[in-house]
Amino acid sequence: MDMLSLIASRHSYRGKYLPTPVPREHLAAIMQAGLQAPSGCNKQTTSLIGVDDPAVLEKLHAVIQPPAGNTAPAMICVLGKRIIAYRDKCYWIQDYAAAIENMLLAAVALGYQSCWYEGHVTDADRIGYQMQKMLGVPDDYELVCFLPIGVAAEPVTEKAKKPFEERAWFNHFPEEKNP
Amino acid sequence: MDMLSLIASRHSYRGKYLPTPVPREHLAAIMQAGLQAPSGCNKQTTSLIGVDDPAVLEKLHAVIQPPAGNTAPAMICVLGKRIIAYRDKCYWIQDYAAAIENMLLAAVALGYQSCWYEGHVTDADRIGYQMQKMLGVPDDYELVCFLPIGVAAEPVTEKAKKPFEERAWFNHFPEEKNP
Repeated sequence: MDMLSLIASRHSYRGKYLPTPVPREHLAAIMQAGLQAPSGCNKQTTSLIGVDDPAVLEKLHAVIQPPAGNTAPAMICVLGKRIIAYRDKCYWIQDYAAAIENMLLAAVALGYQSCWYEGHVTDADRIGYQMQKMLGVPDDYELVCFLPIGVAAEPVTEKAKKPFEERAWFNHFPEEKNP
Repeated sequence: MDMLSLIASRHSYRGKYLPTPVPREHLAAIMQAGLQAPSGCNKQTTSLIGVDDPAVLEKLHAVIQPPAGNTAPAMICVLGKRIIAYRDKCYWIQDYAAAIENMLLAAVALGYQSCWYEGHVTDADRIGYQMQKMLGVPDDYELVCFLPIGVAAEPVTEKAKKPFEERAWFNHFPEEKNP
């Protein structure tokens, strides 16, 4: 599949996963794709923990409430660090978002599905913080997102998106939308 | 080129561009890839303006100081909207960052180079705001980034990145890094 088709075929998958294991080399390749994303001033503020040990997955999923991606045989936890890029500017959110998008695409390229779970773990109940303590991650990192990785057991469905013409234009913002 | 190789081959390109025009269908395909990125709660907070009119490019580049990507025959301006996804949560930065990463990859897939210019236009001098006024973009959008799009006239070089082992681990944060 070419790149543009692959980008078009990526959808957030919230269904059940098959128990088919994710080989360590696939998990590492997906993580490597994440690390290859650009970062503001090349600060590389994003780090990752791949989880494929069933005992660790079980512990993590015990605190992820409501459950999400808990049938997936692997998971990637995304860690961000609020490192200043220059002056007072910090691009850690842009950095980890680009890394996540690369990983979602790499997962699909290798035949897996995933979903970007962020609000789920960074909300007031701080599930991400509990997860990072379980993984031994020091407090100068923040666990901001997890990605279940596995083969879909159900059809991958697509959420409706606005048409191109409502979100993209050429050379000028459309006059009729700007009274 | 497969997806993983393509992700690995994407680098921020700051060199000169060839005058070779970017066909409108290529520019649109890159923008479409951006719109296909996921967004928090599917709020689709990112919009785009593709610029391939030389007169508009010239106007925009007159305010982009210091100059950046000014030899590229096309540009994509990225507009974000601070739309609340749920409760008090807004994921507009994640949304546009994922869209930008998709566009950078799509550009490389089609034989072009680009670079994520964000701090350049969102700094205190608010170059992005001047650009958005020129493009007729209303104030509920924010021009947060521009991507030059064109064929590289110089070699594409790679910035050094930390090795995998310094940013990625399996099942537990490394004990020796957490005293």
